[in-house]
Amino acid sequence: MPDIGYLNGHFSPLEAVKISPDDRGFLFGDGVYEVIRAYHGIPAFWYAHFNRLVRSAKEIQLHFSLGQADFQRLLLHGLQQSGYQEGKIYIQVTRGVAPREHTFPPIGEPTVFLAFRKMVALPTEVCQRGVNVITLPDTRWHRCDIKSLNLLPNVLAKQKAREANAFEGIFVRDGLVTEGATSNIFAVKNGTVITPERNHLVLAGVTQQQVVTLAQAKGLNVQFRPIPISEFLESDEAFLVGTTIEILPVIQVNGKTLRDGKPGPITTILKQQFTAHVSGLAMS
Amino acid sequence: MPDIGYLNGHFSPLEAVKISPDDRGFLFGDGVYEVIRAYHGIPAFWYAHFNRLVRSAKEIQLHFSLGQADFQRLLLHGLQQSGYQEGKIYIQVTRGVAPREHTFPPIGEPTVFLAFRKMVALPTEVCQRGVNVITLPDTRWHRCDIKSLNLLPNVLAKQKAREANAFEGIFVRDGLVTEGATSNIFAVKNGTVITPERNHLVLAGVTQQQVVTLAQAKGLNVQFRPIPISEFLESDEAFLVGTTIEILPVIQVNGKTLRDGKPGPITTILKQQFTAHVSGLAMS
Repeated sequence: MPDIGYLNGHFSPLEAVKISPDDRGFLFGDGVYEVIRAYHGIPAFWYAHFNRLVRSAKEIQLHFSLGQADFQRLLLHGLQQSGYQEGKIYIQVTRGVAPREHTFPPIGEPTVFLAFRKMVALPTEVCQRGVNVITLPDTRWHRCDIKSLNLLPNVLAKQKAREANAFEGIFVRDGLVTEGATSNIFAVKNGTVITPERNHLVLAGVTQQQVVTLAQAKGLNVQFRPIPISEFLESDEAFLVGTTIEILPVIQVNGKTLRDGKPGPITTILKQQFTAHVSGLAMS
Repeated sequence: MPDIGYLNGHFSPLEAVKISPDDRGFLFGDGVYEVIRAYHGIPAFWYAHFNRLVRSAKEIQLHFSLGQADFQRLLLHGLQQSGYQEGKIYIQVTRGVAPREHTFPPIGEPTVFLAFRKMVALPTEVCQRGVNVITLPDTRWHRCDIKSLNLLPNVLAKQKAREANAFEGIFVRDGLVTEGATSNIFAVKNGTVITPERNHLVLAGVTQQQVVTLAQAKGLNVQFRPIPISEFLESDEAFLVGTTIEILPVIQVNGKTLRDGKPGPITTILKQQFTAHVSGLAMS
């Protein structure tokens, strides 16, 4: 079956979906989004993604009427049509279509767009070996807690990482690690699991929260707090988290090997826990 | 005749243009744009806009092959088809269409989109009376010199201004006035015309440059330099400039009347000069 698209009430093959060039998503990046991974047909943590989508929209005064139950139905309906058991669902809500003016359009419905694609996971070898990252200045706007479509700095950071043969670019603002261009970050030091505090400069990651919960369930000490880059570089372990990458060990930063260059024991335990958790997911 | 659109080599009625939801403009705001105003069929300062478009694209490593002569032909052809003598031309170039990944797509052409609409100028009364503005913190990213599609902070600022019954939101960063959400800003003090220095936090405005040139031609002293907000609030005169608004007097800031609440003499002279200049434009 083909990739499936959804636009404002209608499902179709993804390639048949067309957008107006007057969509405020296209003109201003005036919208918000989420990415949900489906495991064996179950959209993981969909309620957390829905809640964050609602929050992001609210923060930019974008009103959409899709409720939680409708959202869930859309996800399942699209997955079913696609036939994908292992799926990647992209959800984007914009402030709709109107002749280009910065101020909000007086009337009009938001654009609700979904894309259902087959999930293509990273090669197992990469997940097991771990990845290189680079650090770069966090020059983004001051509302990175909003999952908005204004992603040009993230695009440029991720591209810069690739050109440096690294998997990810890690943003550093005022000497503190904030997050990756496409991921949240964790460090482990003396058995404590540390991830940047959640504020207006960091996205509150869904996978980040899951990992924290799993770590706490294992009896690990977890801290949400600022991580100076100097401390990060001296971590015992580090890893990236995100919807599609799950938990990905970091073994090199800016070309310098972190510790012994191998995924650490706590990273490995959390990966196992996470895998077990998503394997057991059911639509509740 | 209808509004005219152009997409990747083809003109059509604007409403017939459709974009792929996988366009990187829609997904990431991964693109750049310009707005050009046409006076009696002549796209004003089109070469300056073209040069800035090229620069913006270069700064985000977006390669497009449209040369200056092709660009000029597109503008004239579209205007002609629209039949508009007084037109507003919107030009947007994105990094093209590809399945969603932050890194640049390995192949593929950029999306080149143009829209030709009838110019609807501000009411003469507003232009003559002047406008109210509010100030707000400049929380945008650190590359405001790039005219990119990541405009959500500008959208939110302009909306906030409207909700405060103001025409424009003026950004202030670290105590310095940078620019308006949709305009550049000038202050006049003791006969000197002042506009913020051009750096990575301020867009180099095409109208801004024209106004500077006209002011210098009138023998006025012009300074590109940082403007502390405290100084701005004590200006003798202030005005906004932009492609569609031209020169717009500011008469009130944050609800407080500036001087006598009337457009100042230098603002008035520059407006006259500007009007005379665009009236005399020819396609050279």
